[in-house]
Amino acid sequence: MKNVALIIEYIGTNYSGFQRQKNGLSIAEVVENAIEQATGEKSKLIPSGRTDKGVHALGQVANFTTGSNIPPDKMAININLYLPGDIQIIKSYEVPLDFNSRKNAKRKTYLYRMKTGENMSVFDRNRTLFVRGEVDENKMKRACSLIVGTHDFSAFVASGATTKTTTRTIYSANLNQENDYLVFEITGNGFLYNMVRILVGTLLLIGKNKMTISQFEALLNGGDRKNAGKTVAPDGLYLKEVIYDF
Amino acid sequence: MKNVALIIEYIGTNYSGFQRQKNGLSIAEVVENAIEQATGEKSKLIPSGRTDKGVHALGQVANFTTGSNIPPDKMAININLYLPGDIQIIKSYEVPLDFNSRKNAKRKTYLYRMKTGENMSVFDRNRTLFVRGEVDENKMKRACSLIVGTHDFSAFVASGATTKTTTRTIYSANLNQENDYLVFEITGNGFLYNMVRILVGTLLLIGKNKMTISQFEALLNGGDRKNAGKTVAPDGLYLKEVIYDF
Repeated sequence: MKNVALIIEYIGTNYSGFQRQKNGLSIAEVVENAIEQATGEKSKLIPSGRTDKGVHALGQVANFTTGSNIPPDKMAININLYLPGDIQIIKSYEVPLDFNSRKNAKRKTYLYRMKTGENMSVFDRNRTLFVRGEVDENKMKRACSLIVGTHDFSAFVASGATTKTTTRTIYSANLNQENDYLVFEITGNGFLYNMVRILVGTLLLIGKNKMTISQFEALLNGGDRKNAGKTVAPDGLYLKEVIYDF
Repeated sequence: MKNVALIIEYIGTNYSGFQRQKNGLSIAEVVENAIEQATGEKSKLIPSGRTDKGVHALGQVANFTTGSNIPPDKMAININLYLPGDIQIIKSYEVPLDFNSRKNAKRKTYLYRMKTGENMSVFDRNRTLFVRGEVDENKMKRACSLIVGTHDFSAFVASGATTKTTTRTIYSANLNQENDYLVFEITGNGFLYNMVRILVGTLLLIGKNKMTISQFEALLNGGDRKNAGKTVAPDGLYLKEVIYDF
């Protein structure tokens, strides 16, 4: 048996999320079916974590064990033969048998892409959040710098989500203009359910002068969900990278 | 009666082209239906020209006459209410009653977007041509400079296409690296059927050292279609802008 890790890129728009669901087609189901067609074996993917309906990935990581003779580094090209055009394995490689994409993940980086102004191109539909008007980017950047560090993110978790602790460590959080887009990029040791989307919703309140920096700072120490911003659409969210140290 | 011009942006992927077809849904049909819903009147769009199945537009122009009381500059926002997410009216404005988007077009600009290298992101699917490996960009740029001017483009028209003359004037033709893409941009007084796609197919032969600059130069003076490159996919082609002088 071999343990094989896949780096997966996908457009989340037409899927119910990464994880198999009772209703709707999941990324996991499509990739597992492609693995079965490539290897002749049923396999179960262990992802670094779930992504929600409509959320995209530039570098999701998932592993599976297989008895297939296909060399691990050729697994990508073989699985891609059976994948639709909106899901692609970028890379495949052998990992130790005890490697687990979820448990061994050390850091994750997410992007959230926005377009401000009076309109957004149809080419950005489902891929970018349209924010009508302008925002105070400098104020949002100051708020970003406050996110870095270890905080109780209780104000930034979907209500009803169950988790042992709401404390997470953020290594970097930046807002940058990239071409025509405003891109929020955040790296942390883990993220609560809807955390990035609620952070962006709250940063937008700051950018629209509906929340002060000090109000935001207070929220970062065990605040209440109802005082944070709304959960923005999945359209602009991308799981960019998962980092392991081995 | 008023004559109203629309600047239209669309993702061509899910349509049979601009012009109404017996089989398949056209952009014209979708926009005409939206106009009817907005104005309560049936209208016939006159576009600057057709775009083929799978070809995109950043700025297609089409006009229609209407007795509607909707102010011409508010027509865009009203029609957009009835359009799907992959078609959008960017702007609407009144034009003289004798204005005809096709007959009065003075210049058109097309883009053709390519991605070279070992792979292409799923986010570029249907929007960019994947060119495996590298190309000699400098050689392709030299060829671009030869396209400028008035030539007999008989080598660059789909075989079987009927046209009075195969002579066209090209005002500019450039190849540039834009972010991760290689973008060919061409402006001319008119284009033959499939002309941009055959030009790109031929430029790629030059970039892959399968055609010399002097062979290309000879093709620009009434050459034979069979000596030019293939018609590349519609995926990378965008009608960028139509220019009128009034």
